[in-house]
Amino acid sequence: MSWLSFPSVPAFSPLALPPLLATSAEAVNASLILAAVLLSLVVVYLASKVGGELCARIDLPPVLGELVAGVVVGVSALHLLVFPDGVGGAADSLIMTLLNATSTANADSLTTIFDAASEVISVMAELGVVILLFEIGLESDLKELLKVGPQATIVAIVGVVTPFSLGTVGLVTLFGVPLVPAIFAGAALTATSIGITAKVLAEIQQLTSREGQIIIGAAVLDDVLGIIVLAVVASLAREGTVEISNVIYLIVSATVFLIGSIWLGRLLNPLFVALVDRLKTRGQLLISALIFAFTLSYIADVIQLEAILGSFAAGLILAETDKRRELEEQVIPIADMLVPVFFICVGARTDVSVLNPFVPENREGLITAAFLILVAILGKVVTGLTVFGQPGINRLAIGVGMIPRGEVGLVFAAVGSASGVLPKSLNAAIIVMVILTTFLAPPLLRVVFNRGKEAELAIAPEEVKSETP
Amino acid sequence: MSWLSFPSVPAFSPLALPPLLATSAEAVNASLILAAVLLSLVVVYLASKVGGELCARIDLPPVLGELVAGVVVGVSALHLLVFPDGVGGAADSLIMTLLNATSTANADSLTTIFDAASEVISVMAELGVVILLFEIGLESDLKELLKVGPQATIVAIVGVVTPFSLGTVGLVTLFGVPLVPAIFAGAALTATSIGITAKVLAEIQQLTSREGQIIIGAAVLDDVLGIIVLAVVASLAREGTVEISNVIYLIVSATVFLIGSIWLGRLLNPLFVALVDRLKTRGQLLISALIFAFTLSYIADVIQLEAILGSFAAGLILAETDKRRELEEQVIPIADMLVPVFFICVGARTDVSVLNPFVPENREGLITAAFLILVAILGKVVTGLTVFGQPGINRLAIGVGMIPRGEVGLVFAAVGSASGVLPKSLNAAIIVMVILTTFLAPPLLRVVFNRGKEAELAIAPEEVKSETP
Repeated sequence: MSWLSFPSVPAFSPLALPPLLATSAEAVNASLILAAVLLSLVVVYLASKVGGELCARIDLPPVLGELVAGVVVGVSALHLLVFPDGVGGAADSLIMTLLNATSTANADSLTTIFDAASEVISVMAELGVVILLFEIGLESDLKELLKVGPQATIVAIVGVVTPFSLGTVGLVTLFGVPLVPAIFAGAALTATSIGITAKVLAEIQQLTSREGQIIIGAAVLDDVLGIIVLAVVASLAREGTVEISNVIYLIVSATVFLIGSIWLGRLLNPLFVALVDRLKTRGQLLISALIFAFTLSYIADVIQLEAILGSFAAGLILAETDKRRELEEQVIPIADMLVPVFFICVGARTDVSVLNPFVPENREGLITAAFLILVAILGKVVTGLTVFGQPGINRLAIGVGMIPRGEVGLVFAAVGSASGVLPKSLNAAIIVMVILTTFLAPPLLRVVFNRGKEAELAIAPEEVKSETP
Repeated sequence: MSWLSFPSVPAFSPLALPPLLATSAEAVNASLILAAVLLSLVVVYLASKVGGELCARIDLPPVLGELVAGVVVGVSALHLLVFPDGVGGAADSLIMTLLNATSTANADSLTTIFDAASEVISVMAELGVVILLFEIGLESDLKELLKVGPQATIVAIVGVVTPFSLGTVGLVTLFGVPLVPAIFAGAALTATSIGITAKVLAEIQQLTSREGQIIIGAAVLDDVLGIIVLAVVASLAREGTVEISNVIYLIVSATVFLIGSIWLGRLLNPLFVALVDRLKTRGQLLISALIFAFTLSYIADVIQLEAILGSFAAGLILAETDKRRELEEQVIPIADMLVPVFFICVGARTDVSVLNPFVPENREGLITAAFLILVAILGKVVTGLTVFGQPGINRLAIGVGMIPRGEVGLVFAAVGSASGVLPKSLNAAIIVMVILTTFLAPPLLRVVFNRGKEAELAIAPEEVKSETP
């Protein structure tokens, strides 16, 4: 059997076949899928730069600009970047319309091209967060992180328990929501979006501050807790009971993975450096590091944790080698290329029409949403108060850093919606809560860090216990 | 309408949902697609480093090692990296078997995951060549390229006409092949694989030599000529006549695109630099450059040229700005990440079983292949003799640089096979020709450049007309 027997062999070929070759439709599609991906990337990059630069100029975090720009090009407004899960499909996508107008694609193949190109952009977005967390890991200090470990653990636990119980109790008592949907909505209030927080922290150069490290540590633990809460709540919603075995599995695997990978990684670090030093071909450091990061991401992904936990752990481990600086420099361009895809996609998928108060059916959701937002913010801000043994620390900044719920909250909403547990208005309320916490956190975070500047300055040299004149 | 109505909303979410959430099958798939892509990339990178390093140690070009490593992990041997166009589908892929064993994917969804992950890897491979040609463009010197333009043009034309006529006439007279399939096979002998040649030239630091620039210039023109030849031959095969209008369209659009984009690009270069200097957010240079490169690639792709022509033109244009050095440094890690995907995939898709002489049905093809290989090598090597007005140039190196046919030849074979014009043995012969020219060229190129070292040394300072002692 040779490849020739399959007309789709040249699927990887960059050669665009002329339209007169009706026989090789798949080759034509391959070329048009590439065209659609290229056009999508141009839209992503244009949006990310326009949004980011505008925000930088009015002194807001660039990542907020990227999110808003994503909303503008996405399903809420321009319909340039939409995804197959939307209503209109390929016909709804302006990029596909443009491709249709400028190329020889026929209407039949547009859906195939649209689905394939969307899949590629989605995975590129996911690789974007994987690389982002790898970079965050590289820039973090494992020793510092372990030092603030107890504080981060308490922040994470309080930050899960508080909004969950406040939200559930409030919905039941104040809004008369039945218990199961109330628990679901409460659970959606728990998990912090580490991506957005980490990006803002990096932008305002607070990633390596004590506050930044506590936030990152707590957000990572939050992710793990969120996965466990989701497992519990979903089984509760589906069967009315909790599958204890699964919960135990998740707790054990998360613990073993995080501790095991970091312990083993530190052990094997000298081996890694020795290997890289013996390699002669281009990209020896970067590719070796990516092999390591992607392997850990894969393991984290298949044991039902998140891929980003793996790349974060890999970054943390490699940050302890003397290759750290060199590796960071090489990861930055890759992050610059892939990370915007993630943030623009988050924005593009956000349908802000649920925020419109002039649509009567939105109103009930908006009122519930106002309550959820209050709980979402309060429930995380109080976590700052739990930090002990860290004099002069900016407690407010830690609390605010945990506010954005981002994509994680949406998973809860999607699961709840799919299982039929959540009524429509509560659904909408969760989305509004996610949108507002995500979009509010970046500017808030910047404000509280600026306000706490004295505290920051006090950290710089060593511990400043008293500010005697 | 909110996103919540669609269970696939979290398709972009990095959160792996636990298996008990049977309701969100698509979310589970999204997480497993990411897992499959991560595992494929780990395989690609491991193969590329093992192959590249082994070749570097026995003084062969690393890219040859990548191609061979690709064959080893691909459809010919280990079946780690296979594509949906193969016989076995998902069940044939060792990566999918591994994913199946390590995760909770069920057999039904494996095909979906396999198809999606393969699509992502294929597009990443294509983005790899796009970035490779962008980098080659950046490292090229437009003025130097224009200076050797006449020579490159003649090399390209002779390199298309010679193997085409020799191949066609030889097949008809020596092998008694009917005219139309003979013309098809002759046409498959024409187009040079610019990717492989450029990579080898870069590896042996000959990209900016006069020989290197003539080869690159000729290979780019070759690509354009190849597209035109394919259009002619395919319409001939299908209808017995040639659609003149389409041929004229291709010639005009290629000319307008190449000249127009470079002329306009040079005009707008100062604007680009001024814009980049005013941007404040991270990745300002890289992202602006990618917007430019991907836009040109998109245009080249949809006007039925190749996407790589667009990125090459973009690289050439940006190489003329004073951002060149900085941009090159940032593109290198991206190329290191994406280019191996291309070469490993080329190898992985190559079914070397057609080379086995112990299989009786391979023999006829192998004899024809021997003839085609001879013509393929001779037909390109003679092009070196046509270079005029360049004393002391390494003519053999130029000819050898044009030898690899790579993926372009396979497109011809696939089109011929799909349209039923090519008999099976001729089909196999073309594949063997492509495999051998692709795998032979890298070591040959290194040898001829080493042998002609005196000539190289003579170029370095300025033009050396006579070597008087």
